[in-house]
Amino acid sequence: MTNKFALGVDYGTNSVRAVVVDLADGSEIVAAIDNYPSGDAGVLLDPKRPLLARQNPQDYVDGFYRAVSKAVKHSGIDPHCIVGIGVDTTGSTPIPVDKNGTPLGMLPEFKNELDAQAWLWKDHTGFAEAAEITEKAAKNRDRYLKKCGGTYSSEWFWSKILHCKRVNPHVFKAAYSWVEHADFMPAFLTGNTNPDTMPRGICAAGHKAMFNDQWGGLPSETFLHSLDPGLAAIRSRYNGVTQTADQKAGGLCPVVAAKVGLLAGTPVAVGAMDAHMGAVGAGIKPGTLVKIIGTSTCDMMVHPLDQPIPDIPGLCGIVPESVLPGMYGLEAGQSAVGDIFNWFANQMTPKGEGHDHLSREAAKLLPGESGLLCLDWNNGNRTVLVDQLLTGLTIGTTLHTTAAETYRALIEATAFGALTIINRLEEYGVAVKEVINCGGIAEKSPLVMQIYADVCNRPMKVSRSPQTCALGAAIFGAVAGGAFKTVKEAQKKMTGVKETVYKPNKSAAAVYGQLYKLYHDLHDTFGVKTSKGNLHHVMKQLIEIRDRVRKHK
Amino acid sequence: MTNKFALGVDYGTNSVRAVVVDLADGSEIVAAIDNYPSGDAGVLLDPKRPLLARQNPQDYVDGFYRAVSKAVKHSGIDPHCIVGIGVDTTGSTPIPVDKNGTPLGMLPEFKNELDAQAWLWKDHTGFAEAAEITEKAAKNRDRYLKKCGGTYSSEWFWSKILHCKRVNPHVFKAAYSWVEHADFMPAFLTGNTNPDTMPRGICAAGHKAMFNDQWGGLPSETFLHSLDPGLAAIRSRYNGVTQTADQKAGGLCPVVAAKVGLLAGTPVAVGAMDAHMGAVGAGIKPGTLVKIIGTSTCDMMVHPLDQPIPDIPGLCGIVPESVLPGMYGLEAGQSAVGDIFNWFANQMTPKGEGHDHLSREAAKLLPGESGLLCLDWNNGNRTVLVDQLLTGLTIGTTLHTTAAETYRALIEATAFGALTIINRLEEYGVAVKEVINCGGIAEKSPLVMQIYADVCNRPMKVSRSPQTCALGAAIFGAVAGGAFKTVKEAQKKMTGVKETVYKPNKSAAAVYGQLYKLYHDLHDTFGVKTSKGNLHHVMKQLIEIRDRVRKHK
Repeated sequence: MTNKFALGVDYGTNSVRAVVVDLADGSEIVAAIDNYPSGDAGVLLDPKRPLLARQNPQDYVDGFYRAVSKAVKHSGIDPHCIVGIGVDTTGSTPIPVDKNGTPLGMLPEFKNELDAQAWLWKDHTGFAEAAEITEKAAKNRDRYLKKCGGTYSSEWFWSKILHCKRVNPHVFKAAYSWVEHADFMPAFLTGNTNPDTMPRGICAAGHKAMFNDQWGGLPSETFLHSLDPGLAAIRSRYNGVTQTADQKAGGLCPVVAAKVGLLAGTPVAVGAMDAHMGAVGAGIKPGTLVKIIGTSTCDMMVHPLDQPIPDIPGLCGIVPESVLPGMYGLEAGQSAVGDIFNWFANQMTPKGEGHDHLSREAAKLLPGESGLLCLDWNNGNRTVLVDQLLTGLTIGTTLHTTAAETYRALIEATAFGALTIINRLEEYGVAVKEVINCGGIAEKSPLVMQIYADVCNRPMKVSRSPQTCALGAAIFGAVAGGAFKTVKEAQKKMTGVKETVYKPNKSAAAVYGQLYKLYHDLHDTFGVKTSKGNLHHVMKQLIEIRDRVRKHK
Repeated sequence: MTNKFALGVDYGTNSVRAVVVDLADGSEIVAAIDNYPSGDAGVLLDPKRPLLARQNPQDYVDGFYRAVSKAVKHSGIDPHCIVGIGVDTTGSTPIPVDKNGTPLGMLPEFKNELDAQAWLWKDHTGFAEAAEITEKAAKNRDRYLKKCGGTYSSEWFWSKILHCKRVNPHVFKAAYSWVEHADFMPAFLTGNTNPDTMPRGICAAGHKAMFNDQWGGLPSETFLHSLDPGLAAIRSRYNGVTQTADQKAGGLCPVVAAKVGLLAGTPVAVGAMDAHMGAVGAGIKPGTLVKIIGTSTCDMMVHPLDQPIPDIPGLCGIVPESVLPGMYGLEAGQSAVGDIFNWFANQMTPKGEGHDHLSREAAKLLPGESGLLCLDWNNGNRTVLVDQLLTGLTIGTTLHTTAAETYRALIEATAFGALTIINRLEEYGVAVKEVINCGGIAEKSPLVMQIYADVCNRPMKVSRSPQTCALGAAIFGAVAGGAFKTVKEAQKKMTGVKETVYKPNKSAAAVYGQLYKLYHDLHDTFGVKTSKGNLHHVMKQLIEIRDRVRKHK
């Protein structure tokens, strides 16, 4: 019997990764990475707009060609044995496109226009628009908000589009429609880029664009019109039927197939966001929390569609079938985790004291020993506060505080943030029976994993695959290609966890229990507007002052 | 006419400095520095007791010999022209002594006993005892507290002695008496070290040991007995008449004189603490705030004895004649300023980014531009909170926060702390008409001085002499030696300010006005127990947890 394989293509923040996966056991035969050549490690920045983060859509296309052709070539596998292709991307990363579905950023006249590029997930320029959407949605049709945690984020689809309209009407006008990166890729690969008819995945639509069959798809024309007439027009150029990622978007178009050495017509699955496919690659099922820990985290759960689930305040999204068919997909997350460690190691510590050195020193410390406590909000707080305009805090510094102590306190802070998410899920009846971690940090840092186990007072498992997003994409490619009847069946064959499980240490957990109470006090005092003893204004006003000063510099 | 000179000897935290000063204009003819050879830059530490800071009294004696003989020799001045010697030291730095007044630390059997050495000003091991003294004083005789800001500090005389009794009864028993470093030096130099009769200066006694003629000297025997019978015994071995530093303690004893090349019998002034003599060397007078900015700050004012002055909550001390005869001496201060900058530059920033680099980068930033705000409490808060168990805080960090931004925010925090002291003085009717800065940072950092001017929205003057403490000591030596009738007369000749005055920038002051409000919110929320929206417990509990964990490590 000849083995069969699927191709998973995973678009991250800085690079795209193509993997060829064996359907027999989910093992990765070969992987090829292509780093986006544009900007700062693939991210286009603007010193005058610190919240801006864009990407060059050309990098997505070229990256596919380079990474996939390399993977296919190196695998040495007969293209006939590749049953399907799955693609995952970051999100919400909407791209303004013309009537043909071509990203504006790929057109010569918009090449150097930042607002015409892909608006990367971590772009927060639309924070005022997010607030406006939240406010109007709360007044008009509160139900829109209930499924996205009560607050519409500046990271999401409509905030970004509305912000574009406000700051760059020229680009906005030139955009016939806006397409999520996760939808653009399958459309491009299958040659069906017509914005009106191209398949749109439920995943990005549901989690980021407030799409829900309950109210007939995207938010109503009236509602969007009330924000801006332009948004209502965008709504009308959006396929009103969304699809799950186990569905086939189409067959690989001949031009692309030829460029990468695959067969034309190879099935391409509907796209979805990285965390959602990653959760599948990590073996998500009811009761299992999958934490994908990288620069930020996504915390994913599923819940059977036939069992009631309440709206959960502060949860980014509860969307039917966004992760697995037949299940609600729940998405929570932390706006920065690895990004915080990287910031600290790169900007704030003696040169040469990289992660290895800091981790080694931090590992020698006991919980509580440093007297430090941090809030993990350097990039805002996604869950449960849904507020990008929060900032980091460190308390307890003395004249003896060391870099390693601070590094550890930052790790602990992200663990407290993780626990806050688990607690919120459980408070609303979604029991967390198991935690499977994946992503770079889960792979590489036993220190982080042990601290997470101790802080959360739960065992921390690690996914067998080091690349669950790419594996998840390959799983959907395999299912869309007909190799398995269901995703569940594919997961059973292709996913698993490592033998090493990080178990909580009792005395560490006890100290962290005390520290978490203090974290919680700070969390509510600085993060919740209505809390007693409110310091909610402090971070806000610091940002206001900062932005005013920078504007006039 | 032959010029006349005085010798000023200034004992700092890490070294002793001897200067020969020309009485005609206060100019420094020669200076010699001797770094204390013991411990970590002169400070004895104990990794197990992070609050401990001691000094080897032998360093004081040897340092005098080395520094003074070098200064005298290099000056080439005829010893007959040296009219007197003044000495200032850190404080409260009490030294346990035997019946002969010999520091226990200089005896072979106590040589390696940390508790038998000098208890340096910044030793905070007696924090629990300080709280106990404050509590008992509040119950029994509140008046003791009113003159020292409402709280007795862990840095002070009785806290340290009581702590010694509690943790090291053996040393406590061996100590016949305890002598402030400022009193020990003149006693040693004049050969009159009998603890019962040696001159005790009003300065250290009044500010640190609750000595006040209002209640007949030291706190009553009953009160001290209620704390510990041992303290009452110490009281009985203490000269009940204190003296001002313009008085002569005695003549230089022949043995010491011979060692350093001075004449036996050269008048030696009564000792006082560095900040108090430094204020005199900077030209203190009513309405003038002298800020001595070094590792910590002392903020000094005087107020005529014949004008009423209220008790000022949080002010370290209001003591008759502790600075100038005929005036109340007012002492406030910040527990760490330069120490915070040094900590950050040494521990927390890329190697090679020393103060120069950080200052250069920080100077490019506008007020408010970083979005950062810090509390300057890495070593506790001396004025107005009088609480050593507070810690530093940084708020507003993002993924882009740089070391230079943080460095600037720390400078700004110390400026906000400085403004808090000025405001407190003025709220209680002590008008601050002029600010004269001195000390290493005032000399070396235009950035710090400009930020202080902008934050306080007042001109910042800098003392003409870079060594006001040593100059002040020399002034007292000159007055004690009879070269001037009054200190005021000597100041007129020997002190002044530099031409460069740092003037506040209007727009910077406006931004800092806003930031100060936020600083104040944090200050009260974390620092004041009774404030609304209280987070006073957070720093406290972090320290409790830290100390418990370290104890069991």
